[in-house]
Amino acid sequence: MRKILVVGAGKSTSYLIDYFLEKAVPENLHLTIGDINPDAMPSEIKDHEACTVIHLDIFEDEERKKVIQESDIVVSMLPARMHMQVAEDCIAFGKHLVTASYVSEEIKTLDDQAKEKGLVFMNEIGLDPGIDHMSAMQVIDRIRDKGGKMILFESFTGGLVAPESDNNLWNYKFTWNPRNVVVAGQGGAAKFIQEGTYKYIPYNKLFRRTEFFEIEGYGRFEGYANRDSLNYREAYGLQDVLTLYRGTMRRVGFSRAWDIFVQLGMTDDSYTIENSEGMSYRDFVNLFLPYSPTDSVELKLRHYLKIAQDDIKWLKLQELNLFDSQKTIPLINATPAHILQFILEDSWSLDEEDKDMIVMYHKFGYELDGKQYQIDANTVVKGESRTHTAMAKTVGLPVAIAALAILNKKITTPGVQIPIQKEVYGPILEELKNYGVVFKEYDVTYKGYNPESVYDK
Amino acid sequence: MRKILVVGAGKSTSYLIDYFLEKAVPENLHLTIGDINPDAMPSEIKDHEACTVIHLDIFEDEERKKVIQESDIVVSMLPARMHMQVAEDCIAFGKHLVTASYVSEEIKTLDDQAKEKGLVFMNEIGLDPGIDHMSAMQVIDRIRDKGGKMILFESFTGGLVAPESDNNLWNYKFTWNPRNVVVAGQGGAAKFIQEGTYKYIPYNKLFRRTEFFEIEGYGRFEGYANRDSLNYREAYGLQDVLTLYRGTMRRVGFSRAWDIFVQLGMTDDSYTIENSEGMSYRDFVNLFLPYSPTDSVELKLRHYLKIAQDDIKWLKLQELNLFDSQKTIPLINATPAHILQFILEDSWSLDEEDKDMIVMYHKFGYELDGKQYQIDANTVVKGESRTHTAMAKTVGLPVAIAALAILNKKITTPGVQIPIQKEVYGPILEELKNYGVVFKEYDVTYKGYNPESVYDK
Repeated sequence: MRKILVVGAGKSTSYLIDYFLEKAVPENLHLTIGDINPDAMPSEIKDHEACTVIHLDIFEDEERKKVIQESDIVVSMLPARMHMQVAEDCIAFGKHLVTASYVSEEIKTLDDQAKEKGLVFMNEIGLDPGIDHMSAMQVIDRIRDKGGKMILFESFTGGLVAPESDNNLWNYKFTWNPRNVVVAGQGGAAKFIQEGTYKYIPYNKLFRRTEFFEIEGYGRFEGYANRDSLNYREAYGLQDVLTLYRGTMRRVGFSRAWDIFVQLGMTDDSYTIENSEGMSYRDFVNLFLPYSPTDSVELKLRHYLKIAQDDIKWLKLQELNLFDSQKTIPLINATPAHILQFILEDSWSLDEEDKDMIVMYHKFGYELDGKQYQIDANTVVKGESRTHTAMAKTVGLPVAIAALAILNKKITTPGVQIPIQKEVYGPILEELKNYGVVFKEYDVTYKGYNPESVYDK
Repeated sequence: MRKILVVGAGKSTSYLIDYFLEKAVPENLHLTIGDINPDAMPSEIKDHEACTVIHLDIFEDEERKKVIQESDIVVSMLPARMHMQVAEDCIAFGKHLVTASYVSEEIKTLDDQAKEKGLVFMNEIGLDPGIDHMSAMQVIDRIRDKGGKMILFESFTGGLVAPESDNNLWNYKFTWNPRNVVVAGQGGAAKFIQEGTYKYIPYNKLFRRTEFFEIEGYGRFEGYANRDSLNYREAYGLQDVLTLYRGTMRRVGFSRAWDIFVQLGMTDDSYTIENSEGMSYRDFVNLFLPYSPTDSVELKLRHYLKIAQDDIKWLKLQELNLFDSQKTIPLINATPAHILQFILEDSWSLDEEDKDMIVMYHKFGYELDGKQYQIDANTVVKGESRTHTAMAKTVGLPVAIAALAILNKKITTPGVQIPIQKEVYGPILEELKNYGVVFKEYDVTYKGYNPESVYDK
């Protein structure tokens, strides 16, 4: 009997737990789920014979050390900042560790000890980061294996609402952490490389410099730049690539409307509005508009940002009840970003029957025998229900598959790592296909960075 | 013989030192100037019989304590962060202290001890902060004395170039710290009150929400909001005022053109450009523009920000040689803000014969016997030479006058303070008139916050 410990059972763990329980008999597994709030687990999991659900406060040292010591591998689905407690115990007791989080500087310091003890510390093996690494490296390695030289890499991911649940003008609902959506892109310029030239986009232009993508059967999407396009340049071996661009996907028109919030200053999280409690949505908007003794909030906003009355952007604002003087904000001394998040959640929360959707789009440009080629690859994953979301599937399944592969000694290279080695991504991507995570590839004409697909006005 | 110690003899001290030396005989003064670089002092000061210039490193405890102990009053013209060393010695040895800097949290902690020992610790008694406090409080107190109730206060200051030296399209040269000009307004929204409503302007709109001012004999100016309009609400007793707005003055059209740098992201000081050394001005501009295989940097910029070829904004950019591919940046791994500063200093430095100019404009709205009134007050001070600048006069003279008044026991209220008491501002403003710092007052129609004078597109 091999013992798997899952620490933290938040909303991305449904598929992860299902996977382990499905494999429990054939793979001879026992699953222990430790969470601060074990009562929230559904009874079919709590009562499963291969599963034990326990109360676990990871800041209680004795309890935590005990369950880690008793396990064969640890999967930490805790918030990223809490992994270190668990990781240090894994070193102490000689246990492998799997997380979906970015490798922190802290975790990196354990690399030598993990290697010494032959432990696999696998990180960034969820969706993004995770499936993006694996699916990109698979194509990049294939191009290199046949002698090609990478000259362009672009990668975009988006967490969206499925077409059948897409019933608002923004074509968007919150399917993950709303706060991250509201503050996305802040704290510095987006940096990337286009045709050999560094490019920097300040926050106030981020949502006006988008790129378009077409996905067969799903129509058009747009992407805006992440702050960190160059982060994986060395890890992917793309030091000499001419174009390196990573970003976030939305439905076309989202960014153009979102830019209104940016221009008004509503996404600012750096100061608080003292009298926010009880303020109407309308008065909140008015905080950011010039004073006028006569003009309405609507007219001032349209005039200030030059928005025509029949512009779809304008209809999008109205749909959010932004000019409602009856709806009020219950938050005390909140930042503009928090208040905006509250207003958006009022409109953009998933209904009971709503389904989410993950989209990912890669572009690979390369040279071979003096010619330029391009492969575009994309995947769309749709959720099945409110618990079994596309997000939970794409974050949880790679984690689970990796954990079992480590237990089965199919992944053995020790150390703190991310899934960019063939040994890792090969079998995982193969198994993910069984769950509907399939990348379609298209040979397209290499256009470099295509000016026609970019809206840069 | 009364001994005055001036610590730090930077570029704002010319008038300050002249004042003390002029008063040396009639007031029986001896001046000691302590500076890290005493050789830079002109010989007419070093050789003056009432003056001793010494080398002083304020981080050398023994040396510093000795000269402070030997003095009757200390004037610190050091950078604000260095005052504390001096202030603590002033407490220890029972010496008064005068500075032109903002009261720091550190200095505030000395208030009780200063009061206990009967010491005047006068701060914020330069130009802005300083003359703005004094000239505003004089009018505010007068309005209150006749029973008026303040309903509006606006205050704007600018350090500009004198009309006779104003020979570029921006009507601007650096007359003070260029870095502060480049990063002005960053780090949070500008907050103020208009007609009873809080208003917030994000950085990306700061230079598009300006207000106009007319000064007799000098034409039109514009003002953009400071971040801190509400800072002195309590100190000035303006808790119930309907409009409270503080800002920075420029010549009309400056802000509209400066906004180009903001929109491009060139004023960002939060990250570095790795390959900045040797980069041409033109390539620097191109970092912030969308890639195009065919279009010029000029065309891309005009298209991106929708600037017509014959727009004065465009000519302003050209005047700065921004599109020059020969002029290069010598700075290693510099931030965009540092690089922009370098490019601007290339065009905006004062020539040998250039003179600077300080402008200040206040608006006071009040109610009296059920009627509304408004007083506008302004001053213009022009520099005489590169050493005897308007900035040095308006920063240094109030400091010097205050120091002598403290020595002569005309200012006696002890404690850490700013010059908002009649005892302080009355005689200082009166004496400043002799040096050409004169406020003109105008009774104007109260218009509240006047929408006609605001360009808010």
